[in-house]
Amino acid sequence: MIRLYDLAGARDDCRFSPNCWPVRMALLHKGLPFEALPWRFTEKDAIAFSGQGLVPVLVDGERTVFDKWKIAEYLEDAYPDRPSLFGGEIGRALAHFVTAWTQAAVGAGAIRLILSDIFNVIHEKDKAYFRQSREKRFGMTLEDVTRDRDSRVEEFRKSLQPLRAVLARSPYLSGDSPAWADHVAFGPFQWARSVSRFPLLKPDDPVFAWRGRMIRLFDNAADRVHVLET
Amino acid sequence: MIRLYDLAGARDDCRFSPNCWPVRMALLHKGLPFEALPWRFTEKDAIAFSGQGLVPVLVDGERTVFDKWKIAEYLEDAYPDRPSLFGGEIGRALAHFVTAWTQAAVGAGAIRLILSDIFNVIHEKDKAYFRQSREKRFGMTLEDVTRDRDSRVEEFRKSLQPLRAVLARSPYLSGDSPAWADHVAFGPFQWARSVSRFPLLKPDDPVFAWRGRMIRLFDNAADRVHVLET
Repeated sequence: MIRLYDLAGARDDCRFSPNCWPVRMALLHKGLPFEALPWRFTEKDAIAFSGQGLVPVLVDGERTVFDKWKIAEYLEDAYPDRPSLFGGEIGRALAHFVTAWTQAAVGAGAIRLILSDIFNVIHEKDKAYFRQSREKRFGMTLEDVTRDRDSRVEEFRKSLQPLRAVLARSPYLSGDSPAWADHVAFGPFQWARSVSRFPLLKPDDPVFAWRGRMIRLFDNAADRVHVLET
Repeated sequence: MIRLYDLAGARDDCRFSPNCWPVRMALLHKGLPFEALPWRFTEKDAIAFSGQGLVPVLVDGERTVFDKWKIAEYLEDAYPDRPSLFGGEIGRALAHFVTAWTQAAVGAGAIRLILSDIFNVIHEKDKAYFRQSREKRFGMTLEDVTRDRDSRVEEFRKSLQPLRAVLARSPYLSGDSPAWADHVAFGPFQWARSVSRFPLLKPDDPVFAWRGRMIRLFDNAADRVHVLET
């Protein structure tokens, strides 16, 4: 069976990585059985066989693949007879664009709104590593990063405009049905609701309704883990 | 023959609209003969038949279509046997996303770097309208909008990161060949070089190299008009 090394918190059923969620959704999309192994930030030894230290790492028989986009391409190419993640070569290239946009706009925006909440859900053994590495990256304490989030959340919501424009036309970013672009853009929202009660989205936002559709996919996969925001 | 109402400057061969360029490229992509009629901002009467006052307006026999995205969809559906702009339904939905992103990120960023230069190339009869409407929109003079552009251009370049990420993988945003997503993202860059000598991009930026590939498409279509930046 395919194995996915999947970031976990103190609870084994807290699976909060914005990079692992798209892979989990892609595996469900392809209908491939898999085991999502809980992994903590400091368990570098457990994934050293991949030649690097970040999850997601996917092991499929003899093949090891890391990086969410590389895993998406691997799954599409290794399982071409299963439902497509890209819908062809133009769709693949543009799904890569959405992957990069999600990271640059949604992920980078959201982390400044929820960073301090992540600290509360992670495993005790990860806490020193997490605080040190993130405080170094941001040049301030975790608490200072999110301190003015109530005033900054509007700017984040505004940055989702391209997503909103497409959702005015169809229920999913990829059209009538979800595909990789949806799975990858969903990642940061599932991350946020796994670690925080801070409302990234207003309930009347079309992005909120889309998030709800994503949560209900694959027999409510995104609700069959521990989440803080419903 | 298909008619495209196309924004022109004082010179008939200055065709600078970021919204008309993607349509022109799409017509060339589809290999459809067309006539691009010069139109000025204040010639509202000339396109009143479309029921609104903005270009691009495309007239194909009995059909009138406005809005660049609606025109792209029209051309794809009316000419399905010609080279595809979207490459399927997922590609179409994601091309819509890129259209919205281009407007929200590239267009909105670039206008604050080149607005005052536009004033210098437009037709005399458009100048009062242009200055009044744009100064009202921005709440400051045209000259004040672009005054600190040397310091703000870095932020603009940074906002192109998702484009840059995809161009590290393939020569075009749509993969090995250009398609609508390329044509629409090219719009603001062709707009800028039509009206301004201000360098939006550094020559060592992969986005600059892509812009060059776009300029050379269709027998150098984007160089067979009057441009200020080569």
